[in-house]
Amino acid sequence: MRTIAIGLLGAGNVGQGVLRILTENADAIEGRLGAQLDVAGVLVRDLDKPRSVPVPPDLLTDDPQRILGDPSVRVVVELLGGIEPARSLVLDAIARGKHVVTANKALLATCGREIFAAAAAQGVSVYFEGSVAGGVPILRTLREGLASDRILGICGIVNGTCNFVLDAMGRHGLDYAAAVAEAQDAGYAEADPSLDVEGIDAAQKLALLCLVSFGLRVDPRRIPTEGITRVRAFDLQTAERLGYVVKLLALAEATESGVRARVHPALVPRDSVFAGVHGPFNAVLVNSAALGRSLYYGLGAGMMPTGMAVVSDVVEVCRNVLAFADAGPPPEAFREVRDAEPLPIDEVEHENYLCVHVPNVPGVLGRVASCLGRHGVSIKRMNQDTPGPGEPIDMVILTERVAEARIAAALAEVDRFDDVLGPTDRIRIVDPDAVGGVP
Amino acid sequence: MRTIAIGLLGAGNVGQGVLRILTENADAIEGRLGAQLDVAGVLVRDLDKPRSVPVPPDLLTDDPQRILGDPSVRVVVELLGGIEPARSLVLDAIARGKHVVTANKALLATCGREIFAAAAAQGVSVYFEGSVAGGVPILRTLREGLASDRILGICGIVNGTCNFVLDAMGRHGLDYAAAVAEAQDAGYAEADPSLDVEGIDAAQKLALLCLVSFGLRVDPRRIPTEGITRVRAFDLQTAERLGYVVKLLALAEATESGVRARVHPALVPRDSVFAGVHGPFNAVLVNSAALGRSLYYGLGAGMMPTGMAVVSDVVEVCRNVLAFADAGPPPEAFREVRDAEPLPIDEVEHENYLCVHVPNVPGVLGRVASCLGRHGVSIKRMNQDTPGPGEPIDMVILTERVAEARIAAALAEVDRFDDVLGPTDRIRIVDPDAVGGVP
Repeated sequence: MRTIAIGLLGAGNVGQGVLRILTENADAIEGRLGAQLDVAGVLVRDLDKPRSVPVPPDLLTDDPQRILGDPSVRVVVELLGGIEPARSLVLDAIARGKHVVTANKALLATCGREIFAAAAAQGVSVYFEGSVAGGVPILRTLREGLASDRILGICGIVNGTCNFVLDAMGRHGLDYAAAVAEAQDAGYAEADPSLDVEGIDAAQKLALLCLVSFGLRVDPRRIPTEGITRVRAFDLQTAERLGYVVKLLALAEATESGVRARVHPALVPRDSVFAGVHGPFNAVLVNSAALGRSLYYGLGAGMMPTGMAVVSDVVEVCRNVLAFADAGPPPEAFREVRDAEPLPIDEVEHENYLCVHVPNVPGVLGRVASCLGRHGVSIKRMNQDTPGPGEPIDMVILTERVAEARIAAALAEVDRFDDVLGPTDRIRIVDPDAVGGVP
Repeated sequence: MRTIAIGLLGAGNVGQGVLRILTENADAIEGRLGAQLDVAGVLVRDLDKPRSVPVPPDLLTDDPQRILGDPSVRVVVELLGGIEPARSLVLDAIARGKHVVTANKALLATCGREIFAAAAAQGVSVYFEGSVAGGVPILRTLREGLASDRILGICGIVNGTCNFVLDAMGRHGLDYAAAVAEAQDAGYAEADPSLDVEGIDAAQKLALLCLVSFGLRVDPRRIPTEGITRVRAFDLQTAERLGYVVKLLALAEATESGVRARVHPALVPRDSVFAGVHGPFNAVLVNSAALGRSLYYGLGAGMMPTGMAVVSDVVEVCRNVLAFADAGPPPEAFREVRDAEPLPIDEVEHENYLCVHVPNVPGVLGRVASCLGRHGVSIKRMNQDTPGPGEPIDMVILTERVAEARIAAALAEVDRFDDVLGPTDRIRIVDPDAVGGVP
């Protein structure tokens, strides 16, 4: 049996998952690959830290050169996270002709241009399935399964932390802070959850989805992004009564003029398959010219799901090594990738859920409705609980489809009214099936 | 730009889809492949038959040797369907060192051993994504996306005809014959629908899923298979009232002793994601050790979805051709495939939906219940509409979990009762999420 040596940079959560899968599924991997995978070294910061997966002590090292400088190592698996030192070590590995597998979305969304160019120059592969939607093979599907199709649009629930928090708020009636605390207790949110709850993580994943869907390189920091920090339990409960659930969506559509990408919470119809995506699960709906709508669903994070995606990438790289091919398909799915600025979303039309905060005084409803009307915002439905005397009102309004710029201008004016008590909440209403249009 | 020549055997429904995709998505394909695909010839039976996709007349031929004998043709796309002459032509192509792409599940499920062995001996690829679940890249996912995982179980809705017919019966109240006629009118069922409605097509697809999931070659004719011909609108409506929908499922689980595979209609809980798979859509749920449950959903048939799967296979083969690799991953996913006899399903336990047909006379319910009890079948719930005097009764019973052998023996005895009016209907109750156990 042939053997291929791999090196791991990092033995945190995903790294330990990778080591477990390499051990527990060794037979299945050999059966598919026709070769054994041999871990030649594991880079860690602290040699003595206790780990849930036992690693032979002689494999552990705190010197990256023991792995990068080992000529027998063909594949380097980067699982450090963050930009540095991950970037430098990945570039070093590539420069030495080693293939790279990583699950580091921040690194690739930010420094992908540099890393992919270096890999192309060296004729080595960079695989990154684990960086989007955990174990769900969505990048491979876009790159290979739909290789002959034209992707029109993608709509995903790609951040398990936000999905868990919204679920906990909607199903268990928790307020935002309590739901975040529950997610932290359950291990689904970091101590500092801001990368997740502000939508930044989802925007980075969306940038990678745009890359392999459209061959367009988008800076994730330029994607219009709105997190879930302003969503309230009241919104979720009201949405539920109106036949919707609230999800954080990452959306991108290819248009004649470029890519329209955005991340924001949305009301999704309860009969959509997205409404059934709960807790830490992810789902990506793809709309493509020939296939139409297809959906990919599974666990979006965790040591075993993400570890599985990483090891499957290693298997694919090793198949190419064994076949003497210098590289598989282009890592970015397209031979030529163009830079793209996300289109402004001013012209994007949505129905909207609004919650206007007003005192219980006569005439205020009329003034709000008139103001919306002047800006071309039509009201489809209104809901208002009867408050006690003197209590403020949460006035819920569903609008007809209206362009972003119009609704934004209308709400800016409403929120300047003397008798409006605070910024109006707005959540867009999205039918995932409609993203990318009907092919 | 480099060019790779391909030849098509067949220009029926899927063949015309392939030709349309090669034309309409030529830019996207070139962008991903870095080469042009050039159709060198199209084998047809009738050169003059009108076709919805125009083919340059000089490409059409009724002589297979014009394609197989052309040394410039690197990839042969077989879309004839059925066993012969598809089998002979595929073996001829392989013998001449050409790669093969096919969507012919009957051919591979029946003659796969011979074809894959010939391909291995010649060092050429055989890809067959289009043969299962149309455009949904489920085989690629099992072979590559989950290459490092251990598949525990799969549960699929893989026959769009049956799903369309059951949908039409359940949602529109049609009886079986009318629903089949509607499926035929809509182009979702053949003039002779027996391959579909008897479950034979689903069993062939299940055999291919077992191959790439477990590395086990199963004869589809040995898989316990039950079609939908005996399902009645009454069953669907009653199931609906009880919180279920009826689907034709293809199921396989890996056990210590072998593979337990079967095809049969089943009551599926209404809150399962499978309940939302309508009309011609397919879905496959995979339960694997590391990833857990993941789901793949999309159009399971049609010229464009299946054509897309076929052309994506062509793209992958051509990537290998360009990279000088002799072959990609093993076509059957595993380097070594073992023959397997499907396990008997006598020991498999299900809850069951029963409909016993009895006259409205005293004592019959007691005799049926006692008989079930003697065979160890516990009744969980009973439902019976009050008939008019002298009218027969459809007595609906939901059982607790019980082994196949026990329920079969119980029903054989019940059906021999003098006052039972006809064979008792039985539909198994399956929770797709539980297939393959909890990892």
